[in-house]
Amino acid sequence: MQPDGPLRLDARDAGFDAAFDALVDARREADGDVSRDVARIVADVRDHGEAALADYTRKFDRHDPVAAGWEIPKAEREAALAGLDPELRAALELAAARIRAYHEKQRPADSDMTDDAGVRMGARWRGVDAAGLYVPGGRAAYPSSVLMNAIPAKVAGVARLAMVTPTPGGVVNPTVLAAAEIAGVDEVWRVGGAQAVAALAYGAGPIAPVDVVVGPGNAWVAEAKRQLYGVVGIDMVAGPSEIVVVADGANDPDWIAADLLSQAEHDPTSQSILFTDDADFADAVAAAVDRRLATLATAETARTSWTANGAIVLVAALDDALPLVDRLAPEHLELAVADPEPLFARVRHAGSVFLGRHTPEAVGDYVGGPNHVLPTGRRARFASGLSVLDFMKRTSFLALDPDALAAIGPAAVTLARAEGLPAHAASVAVRLGE
Amino acid sequence: MQPDGPLRLDARDAGFDAAFDALVDARREADGDVSRDVARIVADVRDHGEAALADYTRKFDRHDPVAAGWEIPKAEREAALAGLDPELRAALELAAARIRAYHEKQRPADSDMTDDAGVRMGARWRGVDAAGLYVPGGRAAYPSSVLMNAIPAKVAGVARLAMVTPTPGGVVNPTVLAAAEIAGVDEVWRVGGAQAVAALAYGAGPIAPVDVVVGPGNAWVAEAKRQLYGVVGIDMVAGPSEIVVVADGANDPDWIAADLLSQAEHDPTSQSILFTDDADFADAVAAAVDRRLATLATAETARTSWTANGAIVLVAALDDALPLVDRLAPEHLELAVADPEPLFARVRHAGSVFLGRHTPEAVGDYVGGPNHVLPTGRRARFASGLSVLDFMKRTSFLALDPDALAAIGPAAVTLARAEGLPAHAASVAVRLGE
Repeated sequence: MQPDGPLRLDARDAGFDAAFDALVDARREADGDVSRDVARIVADVRDHGEAALADYTRKFDRHDPVAAGWEIPKAEREAALAGLDPELRAALELAAARIRAYHEKQRPADSDMTDDAGVRMGARWRGVDAAGLYVPGGRAAYPSSVLMNAIPAKVAGVARLAMVTPTPGGVVNPTVLAAAEIAGVDEVWRVGGAQAVAALAYGAGPIAPVDVVVGPGNAWVAEAKRQLYGVVGIDMVAGPSEIVVVADGANDPDWIAADLLSQAEHDPTSQSILFTDDADFADAVAAAVDRRLATLATAETARTSWTANGAIVLVAALDDALPLVDRLAPEHLELAVADPEPLFARVRHAGSVFLGRHTPEAVGDYVGGPNHVLPTGRRARFASGLSVLDFMKRTSFLALDPDALAAIGPAAVTLARAEGLPAHAASVAVRLGE
Repeated sequence: MQPDGPLRLDARDAGFDAAFDALVDARREADGDVSRDVARIVADVRDHGEAALADYTRKFDRHDPVAAGWEIPKAEREAALAGLDPELRAALELAAARIRAYHEKQRPADSDMTDDAGVRMGARWRGVDAAGLYVPGGRAAYPSSVLMNAIPAKVAGVARLAMVTPTPGGVVNPTVLAAAEIAGVDEVWRVGGAQAVAALAYGAGPIAPVDVVVGPGNAWVAEAKRQLYGVVGIDMVAGPSEIVVVADGANDPDWIAADLLSQAEHDPTSQSILFTDDADFADAVAAAVDRRLATLATAETARTSWTANGAIVLVAALDDALPLVDRLAPEHLELAVADPEPLFARVRHAGSVFLGRHTPEAVGDYVGGPNHVLPTGRRARFASGLSVLDFMKRTSFLALDPDALAAIGPAAVTLARAEGLPAHAASVAVRLGE
């Protein structure tokens, strides 16, 4: 192994299975023993509302929300949009339009059917009344994330979308405000951290409670969402970003190097992994990564990520990569080959797949259309990207007439009696004239 | 208020709003400070696997799984089914067939579309590889719940469905085993409690890890699921059962009394609430409940629930009940009127709705078709009943050719640069020849 390069594995080596197991099992998420602190903050905001929220905001954000005003007024958000660089505004609006168009197709259909027994049944989808959107402050305040989180809520029909964002020292990112305006966010509050999540869940002072809380955040924010799951709905807890690239030797190594670095630059804990069947290509990509790192503005982060968590895995044939990819269940998967369909057909576990040589993952971060909020840390085995469904709920229904009840009711009576629930049985039997 | 009756409210009284607020906010879920104990159990099973699972099972279930065998063999499950009372077996098989037919219609469609810019995008649904089903021991071991939890997993295409159930003193409920056999459960393990949930999540000894854990349980089981959310997917945390009945005076009071008692008999913390516009009918229902309680085998539980948590709310018109019902967001809602459609159209928040005079809620517990695992404790504001979707996940995808990338790529470059992510920008720009 090169001292300054990523892990290099060859699937044909004797020790490969153990080494790949270790790669799959490596945990890149901090355990962060914040749960007791977060529990105290959440209880304080639940029990003391506005006063607790103000105290924590003064302490953590060096900012007095009572003096400065809790809310960022609509006029300030409109001014941020009006003051935006025209090219940036056009890019945000293109992104918003494409995200909206994609998510509008996610709206689920209601069902209403009557079966042979005469039983009418179905389900009806409705948006939640109110949703909360957490937007981190500082470096991780991404306007693209505002669009990706807010637009599905609005497409779901959420009438009230409340954004919270810490404004340390009172400072707020105007591009984030402009994105909120484009996405149709209804309220923006100058609070952050676990206390802001608790305020969204329980309500605090001027902030009315919401039904669902989404959005990225640090360990405290993630733990607060986890603790409040059940009081409100939440999106999946997110970990460090990941990309897996499956590429043959016909790719330009420099393109693939750029793709690997696009995730590596997010955070030192991010992970970029290349699978290829061409040893010379593997070396060429590694060299291209090093060349790019020499001039990349985010090289410090990207280099740490690439050397600590990156990997290049040589396989005898690209087909052999797929079971390995499924075990990683990556957030992002690029299939950089001329005909990606046969490979794609075999993928079981991935958050989002980018097909062919001209679909860099980053295009999906911004303007592709599908959501960029995706399951990380192998959670694509069971979880999906953020969608309109995260802001909706389903009400099922049943309608029986006397004939339908006569057809299926007796079985319900039998089962209720077997379960020792006589009042259940009676509520059916009494209508059957028993 | 009668000393032994439920809360009686009249929406036209001066103090109504405050009294109804108190009813909405009343918490019936035990806080149960079990989180530290559960954290220790979960960590023990994660770190020590089979040995820890065996120790906890000996301690809590007075049962040695190593001596008795961890798994309930297929032959024993088949024998339980073969030995079942024929009427009960027929009822279970009718229920299973109806639940399967309903849930098969829930399977989501994949999407694959190409837009005007030439961008191909869509999403593909797949079942998870393996799911775990918790089934409580003792009194709360309901074969109907086995069907309601297991069948959606099988419809989703889950290849491996592993059930865990505590067998205190080695005793297992044969009807539960028969239901598991009918539903197609693949494995049944003699373990329960938080340790069984941890074994499903991490794997322990002979139990391989699963991707999703569902099913009801006590406070320890619920807390274990909450703590393991993210390691695996879980269904919604469930609280005490609830029913709201909206009924006019033309109903038979005895039918409605039976419906109210069908939830009250579940648990002392269950809740049954009647809304009516007819004061005489309200009195008649209250009297009918008392008459039924005199002979009901589950009267002790039902009476406690009805007097402690039950309510009869008089409204000037049934229309006035709907905003109040939405605030309760009940698990079950009966609309017992001749024409329920106008009322149903206005319901926003309910887990499942039962339409008309001949649709007692209990028919939905067993044989209606829709799932009986439903959100409780006002969670219907944001959560849905268990469905096939809980056992599936969605992989989105994008495919661009050079023209499509030329159309939308420049906006991605602009946004990536604005966010301070130059490697993101480069991965697109390099393909645009920049």
